[in-house]
Amino acid sequence: MNITDTPPTRRHRVVVIGSGFGGLFATKALRRANVDVTVIDRTTHHLFQPLLYQVATGILSEGEIAPSTRIILRKHTNTTVRLGEVTRIDLLGRTVTSTDQGKTTLTGYDSLIVSAGAQQSYFGNDHFAEHAPGMKTIDDALELRGRILGAFESAESTTDPAERERLLTFVVIGAGPTGVEMAGQIAELAHLTLVGAYRNIDTRDSRIILLDAAPSALGPFGPNLGHRATRTLATIGVDVQLGAAVTGVDRHGLTVRHADGTERRINAVCKVWSAGVAASPLARQLAAQTGSTLDRAGRINVNEDYSLPGHRGVFVIGDMATRGGLPGVAQVAIQGGRYVARQIKADVTATEKSSPQPKRPPFIYKDKGSMATISRFHAVAKIGGLQLTGLIAWILWLAVHVAYIVGFRSRLTTLLSWTWTFLGSSRGQLTITQQQVAARNALGRLHRIRHDERVNYEVVTRAG
Amino acid sequence: MNITDTPPTRRHRVVVIGSGFGGLFATKALRRANVDVTVIDRTTHHLFQPLLYQVATGILSEGEIAPSTRIILRKHTNTTVRLGEVTRIDLLGRTVTSTDQGKTTLTGYDSLIVSAGAQQSYFGNDHFAEHAPGMKTIDDALELRGRILGAFESAESTTDPAERERLLTFVVIGAGPTGVEMAGQIAELAHLTLVGAYRNIDTRDSRIILLDAAPSALGPFGPNLGHRATRTLATIGVDVQLGAAVTGVDRHGLTVRHADGTERRINAVCKVWSAGVAASPLARQLAAQTGSTLDRAGRINVNEDYSLPGHRGVFVIGDMATRGGLPGVAQVAIQGGRYVARQIKADVTATEKSSPQPKRPPFIYKDKGSMATISRFHAVAKIGGLQLTGLIAWILWLAVHVAYIVGFRSRLTTLLSWTWTFLGSSRGQLTITQQQVAARNALGRLHRIRHDERVNYEVVTRAG
Repeated sequence: MNITDTPPTRRHRVVVIGSGFGGLFATKALRRANVDVTVIDRTTHHLFQPLLYQVATGILSEGEIAPSTRIILRKHTNTTVRLGEVTRIDLLGRTVTSTDQGKTTLTGYDSLIVSAGAQQSYFGNDHFAEHAPGMKTIDDALELRGRILGAFESAESTTDPAERERLLTFVVIGAGPTGVEMAGQIAELAHLTLVGAYRNIDTRDSRIILLDAAPSALGPFGPNLGHRATRTLATIGVDVQLGAAVTGVDRHGLTVRHADGTERRINAVCKVWSAGVAASPLARQLAAQTGSTLDRAGRINVNEDYSLPGHRGVFVIGDMATRGGLPGVAQVAIQGGRYVARQIKADVTATEKSSPQPKRPPFIYKDKGSMATISRFHAVAKIGGLQLTGLIAWILWLAVHVAYIVGFRSRLTTLLSWTWTFLGSSRGQLTITQQQVAARNALGRLHRIRHDERVNYEVVTRAG
Repeated sequence: MNITDTPPTRRHRVVVIGSGFGGLFATKALRRANVDVTVIDRTTHHLFQPLLYQVATGILSEGEIAPSTRIILRKHTNTTVRLGEVTRIDLLGRTVTSTDQGKTTLTGYDSLIVSAGAQQSYFGNDHFAEHAPGMKTIDDALELRGRILGAFESAESTTDPAERERLLTFVVIGAGPTGVEMAGQIAELAHLTLVGAYRNIDTRDSRIILLDAAPSALGPFGPNLGHRATRTLATIGVDVQLGAAVTGVDRHGLTVRHADGTERRINAVCKVWSAGVAASPLARQLAAQTGSTLDRAGRINVNEDYSLPGHRGVFVIGDMATRGGLPGVAQVAIQGGRYVARQIKADVTATEKSSPQPKRPPFIYKDKGSMATISRFHAVAKIGGLQLTGLIAWILWLAVHVAYIVGFRSRLTTLLSWTWTFLGSSRGQLTITQQQVAARNALGRLHRIRHDERVNYEVVTRAG
C-alpha cells in the first residue's frame, strides 16, 4: 500500500472522486485556488455520457466523447489525476482508498468531492445484463455497436426465417431520454444508413420496439412532450409500447407484462437496457458512516450545500446525490461541481485569514432545460415552462451539446460528423472489431460480470 | 452447411477472398461487368493497413481507416459481401468454404481472386506474440493503443524506479516502414503530445528503441534513405539499433544479439512487433493443389498474369503472391486487383461472343514510389530513381495517403485529424477502453491466441 506523503508545508488537499461532469467541472473551478487537487477515476477519460448512444450507433468515435482527463487538466498545475477504483472512503480518518491493477493507494484529504455517478440498474435482476447490456461506459457503447451491427450481419447470413426475424427485432427497454435517442438511432440505421448494404435482407424490415412500464415516454418531460415524442418515433418506425414492464430477459428475447395484466413474449436477439440507474455503491458507504438516508436509486440525501451532515468538507454531487428532486442530468452535476468548488475556496480563504468558516449560500439550480433528440431534425425540449418540439428543439439540442463537448477540436469534428450523419445519411464509425464481433448474438465472450458491486435498490425509474 | 443456390440462368461467378486493397479494387473494377461477385472476408471492413500505426498512437479513429465494406460496395448491385473466414479452397470442385460463428458455407465460383493478405510472422517464435503484439488488424492497433498509453499510466503510479524505467522503455522490433512510423509516433507522444499530462513522470524521459537485424533501416528504400531516416529518428529521440537480432521476448523485456556476437538485455514492458509477415495459410493450400512453390514468407509463385499454373480463372494477388520481386505494398495489390478484374472481364466477354479465350497482356507494375513518415514534416520517399527526404517527401506522403483513403468524408476528417496532430500537438483518439486497459503491462486478458494457423516459414524480412 502506498501512502501519499504529506509535504512539509502542505496546502489544503481536495480529493475529487470521478471525472464525469460533476468532478471535472469542480476540478476546473479549483484551477486557481490555493489547494492541491487529486482526481481519482477508474478510467483515463472524461465521458460525455449523453452522447454514448451515438458511439453505439456509429455516429461518433469514442475519442470525440471521451477525451483524456490528463490532457484536459494538464495545465492545471495544482491537479493530479490518479487512475484507480475507489473502494473505501473513511470519513473519520479523512482518507480515500483506491486500487489499480491490484495496487492499493491511500489518499488523505481536507475536502472531498464525491462524484462517482451512477451505474445501470436492473432492479435486482442482474442476470438480465448479459442479454441486455446497459449504456454507461465507452465499453458498453462499443459492445452495443457490435451487437447492433452484428445482428444485421447475422440476419444477412441466416437461412432460418424465424432466426432472421429475431435478429431484426431490436428492443430498447426504458423510454427515458437515452432510450428514446437509442431507439431513434437504431431506426435511422435500419431505415436510412444501412439501406441497400445487404443482399439477403432489407434492413427496413427491422422492428424497433421501445418499452416502458410508465404510461408515457420521457416521463420528466411531461405527458405532452412524451406524447409528441411517441408520435414522432412512430413515424420513423419505432413501435413504442407503454405500460409494458419487462419481467424476463434471455438470450432469444424477453417477456413483457402489459398494463392489462397479459404477458407477452418478444423474440429479439439485440436488447438494450436503459431503464434505470443506481448510484455508485460509495453512497451506501457514506450513508453508513453519517446516518444519512438513501433514496430508492441508492442516492444519498445531502444538505442544502451538498455537504454531508456533520461533514462540512465532504460533498456528494451529481447522480450520487438527491437534493430537492433535481434530475440526474449533466447540468445538475456541472452546476453542483462549480458550486462546491466555490464553497471550498471560500473555506480555504477564511482559514488563511484565520476568519471563521463562512456561512454558505444554498445551491440554486438554474434549469437550462432538458432535451432529447428523436431523429434527425426532431427533438423535444423543456425549458422551464416552455415546451419545444421538432426542428427548433433539434437546433437547440445541437447548439447545447456542441457547447458542452470538451475542447474546440472535438467540437469541430463532432459537428462535422453530425453534418454528415444528419444532412447525408452516412456514419463514420461503423467499424466493429473482432472483440465486438464476439459479442454478436449475445454469445458474451465479452465479460459482462461488472454488476457484482451493484446496489440492489428498487430504483426510481420506470420500466422493468 | 449452406450451399449457395445456382440461379436458373446464371451469370459468371467471381469470388473474391479478402476485402483489403487487392480484393476491394478488383471488386470495384468489376462493378459494371456482367458477373456476380461475392466478397468474403472475416471482418466487416476494408482496412487501410498503412495507417494502423496512427490508430495505435491515437491520431485516427478506427472508423477513419476501416470503413464498412458493405457501405463502400452498396451500390455495386452485382456484388454480395459475405462475412466469414475462408478455411478451404477446392480448385477441382471450384468451391470456397467459409465459416462464420460456427456455420459453414460453400460458395461456387467460375473465377477466383485470392487476396487474403499476410499476417504478422514471429519466425517460428509465436510465443513472442503475447508480449510483443504485431499490427495487422484494428484489434491489434487498439490493443497497442492500450499498451502504449497504459505504460505511461503505470509508470505514473509506480513507486519502483526500475519498474518505472521498464514502463517508459518502448521497443519496436523491425525497422521497415511500419516500424519506423510507429517508433516515430511513440516518440512524438512522449516528447510532445503527453508532455505535462503526468505529475510523477516526465514522459520525455522515455526511451524509444527501434531494432532491426539488418545493417540499415528501411531496407527496400536503399542505404542512403535508410541512413537519413535513422538520423531523423535520432533527432526526435528514437534510439535506432541496427544489426540487432531479437532472440527472446518475455513480459519484462527482450534479449538482443548484436552484430558483434554480444547478447544484451533490454528491460521494456511495451514491445511492438513489426519485423516480418507471412502470407495467409491459404497460399500453402493452393500450392499443395497446384504444385506451385512458396517463397520464404509463404507467398505463392504465380504466372505473369497472376493466375495459378493450370488454373486460368484463379488469381492470387497482393501480399499472398510473389511476382518478380514486387514489394508487399498497397499499390502492388491495387494494381494487381484492377489488372485481374480486366482479365476476367475479357474472358467473360470472349465467352459471351463464343470467341476463344484472349491472350493476356502481362501485368506491368507502375511504381508510384514508396514512402514512410518519420515525424511531423519529415518523410522519406523513393520514386523510381528519385530520392526525397524531409518536408517535400512528407507533403507527398500526405497527398498520396489522403487520395487513397476511401470516401470523401473520411478523407476530410482524416485531414482534419492530421492538421490538429501535425500543426498542433493534440490527438483526438487517446481514449482507452477498460478492455484495452486489461492489456496493460501485457497482462494479456485480451486473448492473443491468433497465431495457431500461422505458417511457420522462415520469412524474408529481417529483424529477429
